[in-house]
Amino acid sequence: MQIARVIGTVVVTPKDSNLTGAKLLLIQPLTPSRAPVGKPLVAVDSVGAGVGEDVFFVRGKEASFPFHPVEMPVDAGIVGIVDSINC
Amino acid sequence: MQIARVIGTVVVTPKDSNLTGAKLLLIQPLTPSRAPVGKPLVAVDSVGAGVGEDVFFVRGKEASFPFHPVEMPVDAGIVGIVDSINC
Amino acid sequence: MQIARVIGTVVVTPKDSNLTGAKLLLIQPLTPSRAPVGKPLVAVDSVGAGVGEDVFFVRGKEASFPFHPVEMPVDAGIVGIVDSINC
Amino acid sequence: MQIARVIGTVVVTPKDSNLTGAKLLLIQPLTPSRAPVGKPLVAVDSVGAGVGEDVFFVRGKEASFPFHPVEMPVDAGIVGIVDSINC
Amino acid sequence: MQIARVIGTVVVTPKDSNLTGAKLLLIQPLTPSRAPVGKPLVAVDSVGAGVGEDVFFVRGKEASFPFHPVEMPVDAGIVGIVDSINC
Repeated sequence: MQIARVIGTVVVTPKDSNLTGAKLLLIQPLTPSRAPVGKPLVAVDSVGAGVGEDVFFVRGKEASFPFHPVEMPVDAGIVGIVDSINC
Repeated sequence: MQIARVIGTVVVTPKDSNLTGAKLLLIQPLTPSRAPVGKPLVAVDSVGAGVGEDVFFVRGKEASFPFHPVEMPVDAGIVGIVDSINC
Repeated sequence: MQIARVIGTVVVTPKDSNLTGAKLLLIQPLTPSRAPVGKPLVAVDSVGAGVGEDVFFVRGKEASFPFHPVEMPVDAGIVGIVDSINC
Repeated sequence: MQIARVIGTVVVTPKDSNLTGAKLLLIQPLTPSRAPVGKPLVAVDSVGAGVGEDVFFVRGKEASFPFHPVEMPVDAGIVGIVDSINC
Repeated sequence: MQIARVIGTVVVTPKDSNLTGAKLLLIQPLTPSRAPVGKPLVAVDSVGAGVGEDVFFVRGKEASFPFHPVEMPVDAGIVGIVDSINC
């Protein structure tokens, strides 16, 4: 998993029916000291994150777990909002 | 997930029988400001995208979800057409 | 998915029993203009591809789909022979 | 799988309900000679690892296996503490 | 899949109970001409490979297939010993 900052939103239409209602956010991965690292990507949000917040996201099929039994065709998902990083 | 531009088509034959009827598009991943980034790849289309359009795609087994119960052997799939990116 | 050229064969023994009979080919990923890009890898063939042919391959568990119900331990599979690339 | 050193902890809230109770550690991948290599990431711990320890971790859906039948949305998991590396 | 050379062993303890008995080897990926390429990683062995041998390995959940029905939390597995590479 990685830490990222929410930097925008994406509106997608038409989309696969299993994506209906999905909130798609543009996120920028961060280092532990919260500097940008790597390329921005799009993640589906299941925790109510907003632009400017630092989040915790997973990649892969695991990103669809919060939406079961819907088989959402997503490969990145925000599963938490970062409270603190201690290192 | 990532944003990409459809830049071409690929015709493949003979192919695995579960790929029959699949529309295969060549796509170029884009940054949030829609500049090309990374290497082009081939994705299966399930939303009717065409050359020149900006799309939203997923990687991995998730790309086959729109085709269930067919177990399509694909690892990248277009699941939406981009309307707007706000960042 | 990506386009690649078949550049050789690999003989592997002893191997996992679920790999028995698998044809293993060495492939070099290509750009849309068919120039080599990235590192060669080994893929299992399910379409009868041969050295010198340009193929279409998938990565991940999807590569084992053509061999169901055998759970073949492979992570790259050739699923088509490229006819044409238009871009 | 890779070897990594635990370099910190991450506190995440609110989070997906299937992540409740998960211990999230910041880890730095290491070379076989235990030098840092690549980018730090966050992994869920199932073996009681602590900051400063060298661990063994897996990526992908496999990271959720120790938590079955809970479908924990994680993509990296610590599954052992390194005793010795001989090479 | 990729070709790699076994360059060492890793001893891990305590580990997830589904890893009990797993033989963990340190492997260095190779090019088709058997030169080192990329970073070493740890793979579980299911074919009796030893240090100095050239092997064939898979990444991802597929690495756990040889151990079914045990859901071994591994993401790289040696599934064959290389006899010859012809290219």
